Amino acid sequence: MGEIVFVGLGLYDEGGISLRGLEEVKTADKVFVELYTSLMPHFSIENFERISGKKLHMVSRKELEEENGEAILKAAETGKAVLLVPGDPLIATTHVALRIQAEKLGIKTRIVHGASIISAVIGLSSLHNYKFGKSVTIPFSEASETPYEVIAQNKKVELHTLCLLDVKAEEKRYMRIHEGLESLLKIEEKRKEKIVAMDTLVVGIARAGSTNPTVKAGFLKDLLSYDFGEPPHSIIFPGKLHFMEAEALMVLAGAPESLKEIVE
Amino acid sequence: MGEIVFVGLGLYDEGGISLRGLEEVKTADKVFVELYTSLMPHFSIENFERISGKKLHMVSRKELEEENGEAILKAAETGKAVLLVPGDPLIATTHVALRIQAEKLGIKTRIVHGASIISAVIGLSSLHNYKFGKSVTIPFSEASETPYEVIAQNKKVELHTLCLLDVKAEEKRYMRIHEGLESLLKIEEKRKEKIVAMDTLVVGIARAGSTNPTVKAGFLKDLLSYDFGEPPHSIIFPGKLHFMEAEALMVLAGAPESLKEIVE
Repeated sequence: MGEIVFVGLGLYDEGGISLRGLEEVKTADKVFVELYTSLMPHFSIENFERISGKKLHMVSRKELEEENGEAILKAAETGKAVLLVPGDPLIATTHVALRIQAEKLGIKTRIVHGASIISAVIGLSSLHNYKFGKSVTIPFSEASETPYEVIAQNKKVELHTLCLLDVKAEEKRYMRIHEGLESLLKIEEKRKEKIVAMDTLVVGIARAGSTNPTVKAGFLKDLLSYDFGEPPHSIIFPGKLHFMEAEALMVLAGAPESLKEIVE
Repeated sequence: MGEIVFVGLGLYDEGGISLRGLEEVKTADKVFVELYTSLMPHFSIENFERISGKKLHMVSRKELEEENGEAILKAAETGKAVLLVPGDPLIATTHVALRIQAEKLGIKTRIVHGASIISAVIGLSSLHNYKFGKSVTIPFSEASETPYEVIAQNKKVELHTLCLLDVKAEEKRYMRIHEGLESLLKIEEKRKEKIVAMDTLVVGIARAGSTNPTVKAGFLKDLLSYDFGEPPHSIIFPGKLHFMEAEALMVLAGAPESLKEIVE
């Protein structure tokens, strides 16, 4: 029996993988890659094949979720299969399902971690990690009120909320900050709990992990029309701010000076 | 004016840095490293200097926090200074303070992300990321009841709690799982809210990012005496489990079969 090594690609392009991850690729018998659970805008399969000296086999959502990653399991029966995954592996539940199945078949599994959008966005925002509550994804479908409820629940206990934005890789649709905000405003219109309003403080973050990320803090009404550039985008709704967090948002993210008045 | 690039070292040893991070080091005028905010047990300065071809200047807590990173700011006045940081940079607030100060002086700053203990531990546990509430650090000092309160607050709304364990790098003290659990049991004795009891389900994780991490789920009474091996250690207190999370804990982390009965 062989093994599956889940290797994180980190963020943005082929420079995001760790040295250890690249070594695992170089010594693999077969290398698969999935690029649908997250957007890596500048990841080039050709460049990666050149750097690693290995051919990459692209795995679609259908192959991974409906066919249960059969090709990967087959390759791992007799050798070392690597599955390259955007960000840090096994954050997406579909990888966990594959891992469980492999171990049940007697195939060993290992993980090589990569930079994750979750910690990258927290670092870029300069907000304190231990003040984040539950995170949530804002979906393209507007039926779900979950994101609104999560923000409300976190605000009640003064915590920050990280909102990831929906990715429909097969349709090349990546939600942008203004779309996420508009979706929440529609729920606000219905619920009227004053959770997401025009004067709510918001932090928008674009292209985490690239050499030119955009991080902008401001009131929702101003961020609606702010040009964040290319995706991927994320949104943070801050809870109560520590004075150092407020200073960081003013100095590093162009937040309005009036923030000074709303800190702890 | 020059710049400061904060580069994440990722986890465990010198293989955790990304390809992009290594490039930044190779093109730096001066390279600093701090190794006190997190434990990287097998990080070898000699190996890293060999790989990168650069000399590393170690920065102590005192230099970074009391002297405000003067040496780094000085190097960044005229050239490119890199500060190597365990995990993903700017999760520790001390780096945020340095970044604010640099930008105020007109020194540009950038971040190259690395794998973080936060997402690594979530991935290793196989628990669902969006079901984690606020995280907390269990300190060596037993005076603080904050960790107990955070677990209680998360449990009330059925969320998981990630507990990082205290690091006192200068004294070479790294809290172990049994110490963290014992510290919480002492608070339980006082508060008697049945948040942390002998039959509470716990997941212990050791050496995230290494080639031989230990991940073990079980009842607190069993994990107290379980041999997790060398640090760093972390603890997760699961909230309500989805059936897939329960299966993952049983298959991948040796959780007792009786978990089946306590899922959603």
